[in-house]
Amino acid sequence: MGAPRFTSDDEQVDRLYEAAADADLQPLWQLRGLLPAVPDGLGTHVWRWKVLRELAESSGRLIGIHQGGDRRVLSLSHPGLGGLPFATHTLWGGIQYLNPGEVAPAHRHSPAALRLVLEGSGVWTLVNGDAIPMQPGDLVLTPSFSWHEHQNPGDEPMIWFDGLDLPLVRNLDAVFFEDGPGEPTPAGQPALSDSELRFAARGILPAWPAAPASAVQPPASGLHSPLLRYPWADTDRALTALLERAGTAWAEVRYADPATGRDIMPTLRAEMLRIRPEGRTSRRRTAGSAIVVVRSGSGASLIGQERCDWSAGDIFVLPSWAAADHHSAEGADLFILSDAPVLEAIGLGRRQAEDVR
Amino acid sequence: MGAPRFTSDDEQVDRLYEAAADADLQPLWQLRGLLPAVPDGLGTHVWRWKVLRELAESSGRLIGIHQGGDRRVLSLSHPGLGGLPFATHTLWGGIQYLNPGEVAPAHRHSPAALRLVLEGSGVWTLVNGDAIPMQPGDLVLTPSFSWHEHQNPGDEPMIWFDGLDLPLVRNLDAVFFEDGPGEPTPAGQPALSDSELRFAARGILPAWPAAPASAVQPPASGLHSPLLRYPWADTDRALTALLERAGTAWAEVRYADPATGRDIMPTLRAEMLRIRPEGRTSRRRTAGSAIVVVRSGSGASLIGQERCDWSAGDIFVLPSWAAADHHSAEGADLFILSDAPVLEAIGLGRRQAEDVR
Amino acid sequence: MGAPRFTSDDEQVDRLYEAAADADLQPLWQLRGLLPAVPDGLGTHVWRWKVLRELAESSGRLIGIHQGGDRRVLSLSHPGLGGLPFATHTLWGGIQYLNPGEVAPAHRHSPAALRLVLEGSGVWTLVNGDAIPMQPGDLVLTPSFSWHEHQNPGDEPMIWFDGLDLPLVRNLDAVFFEDGPGEPTPAGQPALSDSELRFAARGILPAWPAAPASAVQPPASGLHSPLLRYPWADTDRALTALLERAGTAWAEVRYADPATGRDIMPTLRAEMLRIRPEGRTSRRRTAGSAIVVVRSGSGASLIGQERCDWSAGDIFVLPSWAAADHHSAEGADLFILSDAPVLEAIGLGRRQAEDVR
Amino acid sequence: MGAPRFTSDDEQVDRLYEAAADADLQPLWQLRGLLPAVPDGLGTHVWRWKVLRELAESSGRLIGIHQGGDRRVLSLSHPGLGGLPFATHTLWGGIQYLNPGEVAPAHRHSPAALRLVLEGSGVWTLVNGDAIPMQPGDLVLTPSFSWHEHQNPGDEPMIWFDGLDLPLVRNLDAVFFEDGPGEPTPAGQPALSDSELRFAARGILPAWPAAPASAVQPPASGLHSPLLRYPWADTDRALTALLERAGTAWAEVRYADPATGRDIMPTLRAEMLRIRPEGRTSRRRTAGSAIVVVRSGSGASLIGQERCDWSAGDIFVLPSWAAADHHSAEGADLFILSDAPVLEAIGLGRRQAEDVR
Repeated sequence: MGAPRFTSDDEQVDRLYEAAADADLQPLWQLRGLLPAVPDGLGTHVWRWKVLRELAESSGRLIGIHQGGDRRVLSLSHPGLGGLPFATHTLWGGIQYLNPGEVAPAHRHSPAALRLVLEGSGVWTLVNGDAIPMQPGDLVLTPSFSWHEHQNPGDEPMIWFDGLDLPLVRNLDAVFFEDGPGEPTPAGQPALSDSELRFAARGILPAWPAAPASAVQPPASGLHSPLLRYPWADTDRALTALLERAGTAWAEVRYADPATGRDIMPTLRAEMLRIRPEGRTSRRRTAGSAIVVVRSGSGASLIGQERCDWSAGDIFVLPSWAAADHHSAEGADLFILSDAPVLEAIGLGRRQAEDVR
Repeated sequence: MGAPRFTSDDEQVDRLYEAAADADLQPLWQLRGLLPAVPDGLGTHVWRWKVLRELAESSGRLIGIHQGGDRRVLSLSHPGLGGLPFATHTLWGGIQYLNPGEVAPAHRHSPAALRLVLEGSGVWTLVNGDAIPMQPGDLVLTPSFSWHEHQNPGDEPMIWFDGLDLPLVRNLDAVFFEDGPGEPTPAGQPALSDSELRFAARGILPAWPAAPASAVQPPASGLHSPLLRYPWADTDRALTALLERAGTAWAEVRYADPATGRDIMPTLRAEMLRIRPEGRTSRRRTAGSAIVVVRSGSGASLIGQERCDWSAGDIFVLPSWAAADHHSAEGADLFILSDAPVLEAIGLGRRQAEDVR
Repeated sequence: MGAPRFTSDDEQVDRLYEAAADADLQPLWQLRGLLPAVPDGLGTHVWRWKVLRELAESSGRLIGIHQGGDRRVLSLSHPGLGGLPFATHTLWGGIQYLNPGEVAPAHRHSPAALRLVLEGSGVWTLVNGDAIPMQPGDLVLTPSFSWHEHQNPGDEPMIWFDGLDLPLVRNLDAVFFEDGPGEPTPAGQPALSDSELRFAARGILPAWPAAPASAVQPPASGLHSPLLRYPWADTDRALTALLERAGTAWAEVRYADPATGRDIMPTLRAEMLRIRPEGRTSRRRTAGSAIVVVRSGSGASLIGQERCDWSAGDIFVLPSWAAADHHSAEGADLFILSDAPVLEAIGLGRRQAEDVR
Repeated sequence: MGAPRFTSDDEQVDRLYEAAADADLQPLWQLRGLLPAVPDGLGTHVWRWKVLRELAESSGRLIGIHQGGDRRVLSLSHPGLGGLPFATHTLWGGIQYLNPGEVAPAHRHSPAALRLVLEGSGVWTLVNGDAIPMQPGDLVLTPSFSWHEHQNPGDEPMIWFDGLDLPLVRNLDAVFFEDGPGEPTPAGQPALSDSELRFAARGILPAWPAAPASAVQPPASGLHSPLLRYPWADTDRALTALLERAGTAWAEVRYADPATGRDIMPTLRAEMLRIRPEGRTSRRRTAGSAIVVVRSGSGASLIGQERCDWSAGDIFVLPSWAAADHHSAEGADLFILSDAPVLEAIGLGRRQAEDVR
């Protein structure tokens, strides 16, 4: 399909529009809405845990793991995006379900992914051969074009949240994909991944050996965090200490590359926000969008003029430039995935804090 | 519109798909083509100078400058993009036409723009108040959210190429726009812009005064080049010297921020490629897309398996990951605008050189 | 004193030399040894813990804390440096001794310092008001121009190693110094310093509040680590995990800024090297010098052609470009302080590994 | 020589001091002046062009080029540095003299050097084989460990100023030196060096070929400017344009790496300061020292409380943290060489502007 045909009340101009359309050109002066004053295209949307969990379990019963794409995922499809399987213009969110005994075989792709474990235990994700244990609340990274597979040798199913930059990478026309060998990688299922052994304490970096002979993981590219698992205990400890020190109603931590302090991956920022009982965050807005996963607790957010109630397991969208605050009667932990590093890297980051409406 | 409804040959699965659609979820295993092996969505496309020029002149006769958007632009609408007024998924290209005596009044927007002058002279573009003269072959920058207006006090019309990152910024939900005061800014029309006076020689940077009292331009943000005009004479001299030294069939220069060496703006790379008579470039492909404007000469490109002939003023698209080479019997200068800095900044840059098919 | 007078066997040349000396000029062709093929000026030197401890205790008995400089320090004076109180051309090392009940009052200076606790407990170092507990094996930072004081409210003395970049900063003519108010800062003596509460886990950075109202510490300058204490338990855990993973005879970690991964301070690198029982390191050499403090264990080093035996508490020098390896029968931990970040920052870093003689 | 012996009026303390000296330790509390409030060690000093020129010519008549070090240089020996052949604690300055027909053969060393041509023409400096023409006012770089030789095929002698970071690199124990083959490199003596051909215009960088087959120069390390000659015409044009724009009494430009905007070399900053007739600069002070070469004109500086008159060819020192301003009745150009990049790279940069005393 080529350029659309515009019309006017002047015959000569009509002929110009006709010729322009034939030449695959469009008159800018006819294109309304191309440059809005502020981003306002997309509203928020909530997916409820009760529904997500029920449909994930149904898919676990009805759909084989190898039935298309080798991943049993239900993807969030924001109703404002015209049927696309995306949560926002840049972010993909999904619920993945893996039965006991199943293996989701290795593949790799230029879109980067992360996992936040919602339920279950005993699953290993192998990233370039490094076996990473998954427990509830853990954040696990599968950076751009790293081989990854999921193995469930345990006896219970696991449900996790998948976050990807897939819509962004598609818009950049930069999706590359490769299938792995098909056979599961033999994994020793150690208590700690190699990446955790190398980065075992805050502020202490391996100097030698940087990459011993036995290493399964290739040398870090410097583009993403070499630490591939952020266990829940670390996140919880950091939030507890930060709140103890700050004495505020809420606190927020950012998952970072321990070797550079930069975001875990160049396209995705991950944060955990803790609200104390009866706490309320300040009101802020940011250029760029986010997906919020309620890790625990319940509460409500005021997003633009829309009130959104939520409880554990619910997932909702923070649209670009929508002012938002969050409060909780019982206290809550919110996992926030955003495209902020992308906007910041190219000079488009903007935020407003406090008292925005 | 919500999530699409899928079907199967199993009633239970159909119920699952129904429930998923009702819940704004989509089954990943039904989504074919989401992760292609390599980018292959978009083909090339050529717009001919003869047509561009004729329609630009028609619009100059028929359309008032203040008729919608205050800019008289015909935008390239790639037929592979379903009617969008964009040249590629990330890049906007257009032909702007300004009659003698006209003023396109000041506005600013988060999408960044550049201009390559194709025909005419005597126009000033004011960027944050700095009056920048425009001559054929000059590259003029209007970085993200800088005020810019165009004034034609001369006696001939001007046609220039507009390149913007608008499609990218829209996909990031990060378009901000503001109108200026409406009245033209009084401009002294000096021979050189302030930005050229401050950066008057290669490798020599102003140390003091960095921003004198009389400065119209605000201090540089560090995000874009403080040099706002790259006169054709400089570009020509650089290419001539580089070819003299290298003795190769072609050479290429990159427009850069003289204070950092980085790309002129964080979202756009601009390059000029010179092919000697009877020269042919190597064959390369790059993740990310580009618009090519034939500054002078004629020749042909092999883009993927498609041969594309071109001559002065023609504009064509280099799609993401399409192998391409260019040759010319008489010699040619090609201006290349791409989104490469974006992909590189977020770790998605990829290229293959030589002998790619 | 002006330029030295050179002589020759030619009267005219003598007159030239005379005139040059009178004009504060020197003939380069008479200056032998100005540009040696490789750095070779300084040998190694060892200070024995038995002596260091005994003299530190004597000074604790005999010298009041306020007697000159408000610090009771014995500084390492390398015999190859002509009587200067420095360990190498760039590094200061010393042994500081603080009696129970004593306070070394606040001051600040542009030279940066760090402390490695050798014996005792119950001391607090306050850095810009943040009370940092000190225990054996802890590394504590007092970055350039940060206020620091030491308080010993406990009932035992403490001995620690002081490492500074003072010789370097003097050579750069960049020493600045300021005395504090004289009165001790009231300190709550918490179990953890503010800086540890803010950076409580690896790879998890505080996002909000970055600096709450109650903060005693000013916002980080970005020039040094915001984490001011590296407790021994963290260092030990990191080395244990790294050796478990690597299976090598030795391993080494680097103390880093958790927010950037860079060295703890821009002029000083701190590392801990663990040798397993019967282990031997590879042989390496590096441009720039280092001070080694034997944290525990015993062993020997071959430095150039010199053999240097050491046991716990000993301190020795690794001269610039001297090839060195270390081995230990019982296993050992070596703390290594060097000026490597300086040389690397200005392009003078060089190293050779393996099989160097 | 080991640690000095201190004395007291207490016998026990005397024994402690004795034992400390025997153990190569020094009591900090006896070390006065180690930490001055501000840098104040070194005063200014002036070397007069009349004397420099006369002695350089004498050395040209009396001393063979191969007589020690292969360079005929008179080095500035600041009388406050106890006979060292250095201008400041970090900077070397010298006057080099090359007769017609002479060749100063190739060598290389880790200390970096630059040349400012004072008199004569027709000399080529070869840097890694790239033949660089030298004319009055030109700045020519010989970065750290690059091969360099000087050839004078012309018929007049040349005198130039040599600036090096040698004292700094010696203090860092990081001097490496290597002699070249002895035979002069055949040089085509082109009008422009390769490095100038590659970087022929401001803000225009070579993209392809980056390093053609015929290149004599190895790929840039990124540590220093790839542009090795800054011809006087460029510097003059930049200063003229900057003054035209600013309308101030003086202006200053910094020589920069055109590919990064950073200083020409990581240890040395070079600037040119132009004072208009009857102009006076602001009064400033900076941590770190500088050498000033009067390129043209005459005037006077107030450095601390010392007045220093100067005219063309004179060289004087700006000591660390000395407040200084400069004025000129007839107008003047001052070349300023400093160690500022070193101090800034390691967080020790400090400056005060305006009204400092």
